[in-house]
Amino acid sequence: MSLKEICKPIKRDLEDYEQEFKRILKSNVFLIDKVIQYIIANKGKRLRPILVILTSRLHNGNGAVLEKRNLKAAAIMELLHTATLVHDDVVDGSNQRRGVPSVNSIWKNKVSVLMGDYLFSKALLAMLSLKSMRAYQIISETAERMAQGELLGVERRKDYWMEEEVYFRLIGDKTASLLAAACQLGAVSSSDDEEDIVAMKDFGENLGLAFQIRDDLLDILGKEKKTGKPLGNDIRDNKVTLPLIFALRQAKRGEARRIIRMMKRNAKRREIQEIVSFVEYHGGIDYAMKKANGYLELAEKSLERYPDTPYKDSLTKLVSFVTTRES
Amino acid sequence: MSLKEICKPIKRDLEDYEQEFKRILKSNVFLIDKVIQYIIANKGKRLRPILVILTSRLHNGNGAVLEKRNLKAAAIMELLHTATLVHDDVVDGSNQRRGVPSVNSIWKNKVSVLMGDYLFSKALLAMLSLKSMRAYQIISETAERMAQGELLGVERRKDYWMEEEVYFRLIGDKTASLLAAACQLGAVSSSDDEEDIVAMKDFGENLGLAFQIRDDLLDILGKEKKTGKPLGNDIRDNKVTLPLIFALRQAKRGEARRIIRMMKRNAKRREIQEIVSFVEYHGGIDYAMKKANGYLELAEKSLERYPDTPYKDSLTKLVSFVTTRES
Repeated sequence: MSLKEICKPIKRDLEDYEQEFKRILKSNVFLIDKVIQYIIANKGKRLRPILVILTSRLHNGNGAVLEKRNLKAAAIMELLHTATLVHDDVVDGSNQRRGVPSVNSIWKNKVSVLMGDYLFSKALLAMLSLKSMRAYQIISETAERMAQGELLGVERRKDYWMEEEVYFRLIGDKTASLLAAACQLGAVSSSDDEEDIVAMKDFGENLGLAFQIRDDLLDILGKEKKTGKPLGNDIRDNKVTLPLIFALRQAKRGEARRIIRMMKRNAKRREIQEIVSFVEYHGGIDYAMKKANGYLELAEKSLERYPDTPYKDSLTKLVSFVTTRES
Repeated sequence: MSLKEICKPIKRDLEDYEQEFKRILKSNVFLIDKVIQYIIANKGKRLRPILVILTSRLHNGNGAVLEKRNLKAAAIMELLHTATLVHDDVVDGSNQRRGVPSVNSIWKNKVSVLMGDYLFSKALLAMLSLKSMRAYQIISETAERMAQGELLGVERRKDYWMEEEVYFRLIGDKTASLLAAACQLGAVSSSDDEEDIVAMKDFGENLGLAFQIRDDLLDILGKEKKTGKPLGNDIRDNKVTLPLIFALRQAKRGEARRIIRMMKRNAKRREIQEIVSFVEYHGGIDYAMKKANGYLELAEKSLERYPDTPYKDSLTKLVSFVTTRES
């Protein structure tokens, strides 16, 4: 099941969203426009706006045209996501993003830092027009979780014996928080029922945990052409992910230490292949997949309270898309 | 008149503010705490919280203890300011800030970018507890102006023939906007009268323009020991400021071109001295001072509507402090 098929019921909404997104980003500074055009031309999966729209529709029923505030909510989430990507490229020193040169590698750190801030301010301004304190609360709390998660990630780089619990806190704050916020914003912009908002938080959070575990798996298993990123990137960067955490604890101490030494002195291409085999042999990949599936089951549970609609159907399909996707 | 004397009527308020600022910044990530402690130990003039407190008091009268929301507003402004400083050090590649190593030079770009984002998210969370849509609007619009101004600055670096109008737009967005926001937040957190907010916007904006012109002058005239920054930094960075803009237009074309060539090939220490003399000879310094004084007169006008209080008196003194300060 492709993302395109999943999005069939909201095809029109997504087009309206694109317009809204572009409208929000109009600027009268030439440099800003140039960078924004580049970002729009190389847009990603749009997972976050898709989540906002599907969860808006889940609560809002069948209006022919999605209301402006739902489109705005979708744009806000994509703005926040894009802002963090642009900053992440500076943070990670990445040259590639979505298979093309990163903003950072074309315009350098200076412009990337400022563009991230600019996109963030645009998200705030769009929020303002939602006139919802609840939405504002969700966004501020999410912004804090994300920055905190990223900093915890920096602190725990090379922490090869990290507890699973820390790993889950890390990916929860860094990734799941934003997907949870997207689903909550869908609910907030269409419903006044606090139980809806809680259900959507759980849905998004669990989906997000599974999403990030899949991301970590793709770094090991994926096809470079599809992900647009060099494989074994996390291993090279000494980023500790679930499959590795599990494998290191399963292996004999001596073997684990040998693998860690390899990573510490910046593993070469051939060594990365060896580390991948090590993780696979000790069941790290199976374990991570099982964990991801557990979170997806929890996500599906949160949808039970809603009546059957094409939107609920799409959200259910999205859940299985997350663990089968190849990019 | 020193800033300390100016702040006498709000000495107690400033102590309460310090507590609030520290309370907001508590975190459970070790790395975050370390960076924050460093920032707090090397705090600057606290001009923005001082402005919030004085303008709060200007509207709020004489309560023995300043209300919590006023202290929060003060902390929000300092958080925003600190966030932009931390990002600025990445943007400018500066190693020094306030006479000590910058966050960037100790913890590198990665941590600086993320810490800036973290501080920004903390400002948003503190905003949330103000429960004021008007305050939220001011902050979002200011965040956009600041990021836009910074990006315009990047675009116009080395634009030696920049019109004065562009220069004023630039420093208005980059610097004056935040001082205006501080004064507006003081009004918003103490008054419901929209005219107060407008008066405070004008006051802060004009004060901010004068403040930045003085900053640009200090780069040329200042004492390295007092400013904590190497002199002629702007010239070395090819940043075009008012004294230079004026001097280049006053000088004969040929001489101006020679100065520009010198800057383009990254002026050496001895050449920077020559450029400073050039600016002085052609009246760039006098002109900038006159302009700054013009804005200060406008700022004073905005205070006329208020009754005489120690707080109005301090704000008036602050106005002259801005053009006489040496750091």
